[in-house]
Amino acid sequence: MARRRMVYEGKAKILYEGPEPGTLIQYFKDDATAFNAQKHDVIDGKGVLNNRISEHIMTALTSIGVPNHFIRRINMREQLIRACEIIPLEVVVRNVAAGSLSKRLGIEEGTPLPRPIIEFYYKDDALGDPMVTEEHIVAFNWASQQDIDDIISLALRVNDFLSGLFTGVGIRLVDFKIECGRIWDGDYQRIIVADEISPDSCRLWDIKTGQKLDKDVFRRDLGSLADAYTEVARRLGILPEGGNGKRGPKLVH
Amino acid sequence: MARRRMVYEGKAKILYEGPEPGTLIQYFKDDATAFNAQKHDVIDGKGVLNNRISEHIMTALTSIGVPNHFIRRINMREQLIRACEIIPLEVVVRNVAAGSLSKRLGIEEGTPLPRPIIEFYYKDDALGDPMVTEEHIVAFNWASQQDIDDIISLALRVNDFLSGLFTGVGIRLVDFKIECGRIWDGDYQRIIVADEISPDSCRLWDIKTGQKLDKDVFRRDLGSLADAYTEVARRLGILPEGGNGKRGPKLVH
Ligand SMILES: Nc1ncnc2c1ncn2[C@@H]1O[C@H](COP(=O)(O)OP(=O)(O)OP(=O)(O)O)[C@@H](O)[C@H]1O
Ligand SMILES: Nc1ncnc2c1ncn2[C@@H]1O[C@H](COP(=O)(O)OP(=O)(O)OP(=O)(O)O)[C@@H](O)[C@H]1O
Ligand SMILES: [Mg+2]
Ligand SMILES: [Mg+2]
Repeated sequence: MARRRMVYEGKAKILYEGPEPGTLIQYFKDDATAFNAQKHDVIDGKGVLNNRISEHIMTALTSIGVPNHFIRRINMREQLIRACEIIPLEVVVRNVAAGSLSKRLGIEEGTPLPRPIIEFYYKDDALGDPMVTEEHIVAFNWASQQDIDDIISLALRVNDFLSGLFTGVGIRLVDFKIECGRIWDGDYQRIIVADEISPDSCRLWDIKTGQKLDKDVFRRDLGSLADAYTEVARRLGILPEGGNGKRGPKLVH
Repeated sequence: MARRRMVYEGKAKILYEGPEPGTLIQYFKDDATAFNAQKHDVIDGKGVLNNRISEHIMTALTSIGVPNHFIRRINMREQLIRACEIIPLEVVVRNVAAGSLSKRLGIEEGTPLPRPIIEFYYKDDALGDPMVTEEHIVAFNWASQQDIDDIISLALRVNDFLSGLFTGVGIRLVDFKIECGRIWDGDYQRIIVADEISPDSCRLWDIKTGQKLDKDVFRRDLGSLADAYTEVARRLGILPEGGNGKRGPKLVH
């Protein structure tokens, strides 16, 4: 393959220049990190699974009219995406108390929330991605109030869609994180969903057993992360029923 | 004095039943606490100063039509207030970066903010008063969206007023915290400012020297807290120019 210019190397993904202006190639690594990268491991096959799961979800979002960066998958680990100006926020939508919300507000993990709660975290590793409010976001010009309103609309639509998608395959969508970015059609600015939507960025619990099928398996040392992600992919119909993920996940096509 | 029923003893104040239904007596103690009461001391005269300063500010707020709980001062340490149903939030308004905001967002103390920033903290000592957003407040029914809108209006009016008051006496209003509560006129609910407004709940810096005249003097061991509060009271015209606060603050009347 021809050498491509690397644009950014993150903890879980690498961005390369795309074939056309306004595009990028997103490469999914096998690296898993948690607690602001204090915990790190390489999970054989994770990148392949996330590339495929994120494609699956983004494609479905496009089909219901939720704008996002996904253009097409290139190979097992790479996808072509629209380049956007990332808004430096992690947008978290929660349906059930877990993780930092449980800790911060003293609400037992697993408690259903009275309504979905949206939270914003300022993307800054050095600061540990602190939670921020709309006040901070507007005051520091990370996004306008209009941007925030657009982001909230997108986040709630993604929540509705993912809730349905996962309910359909026996999984409870506890919470998830998205990133959004700006693109321009001429002078007209639009907000789109970017980055990835995968078990790295969602909390997914088996509806019947409560078994965790997401990155908490890694964060809390609960077993094989690859097995958990393979199970999610299989339920979503991406892997053949017979695939066991042991010798690397088998993709349908 | 007749025995009165104590309703609540807090870290800095005691509430007693008032003489009429719907009233309370707020008694100001000399106790100073910080870092969720891990640091504690008794500062001779602090209660007297805060009782008097809070009276001064609340009375002025009433005169500009900002509803609050203050009825009248009873004696050196006590004031009569309207009982309200406290909304369990600390409402912080910031004009200049300091304290936890500086730490959380990596903004140097003293940096003017591009616009006033309002923050909410959930009043729960066991949880360390965590920052929360309007999402959490509405979802957990601590306050309605209408309540929040009313609280923000009150907080911004208090900010405007206090900014003017302190500018007039050579003090920079860096930030402050208020508590709000609900009262009912028949079926009609109103939000009022409650608790206290004093150097315990504001950050106040001398405009010329930058000298701190607030509870940070205690938090950071910067000298005599009583002297700092006495200076604030003196500038506000509550203490005679000659009073030096050494033998306990001298009140004008
Ligand atoms: N469509 C897009 N256009 C531009 N940048 C994007 C797009 N989608 C995702 N990104 C950015 O690409 C990077 C992906 O790398 P990765 O997720 O590994 O980063 P990271 O180490 O997690 O760091 P970060 O905290 O920034 O996410 C992120 O910085 C993400 O914001
Ligand atoms: N008008 C009012 N009606 C009812 N309660 C009030 C009113 N004004 C203030 N309070 C409450 O009275 C208490 C004052 O005590 P103090 O400030 O010492 O409490 P504290 O130890 O700081 O605890 P807290 O964290 O609750 O403030 C607070 O709980 C405050 O919310
Ligand atoms: Mg990332
Ligand atoms: Mg208090």
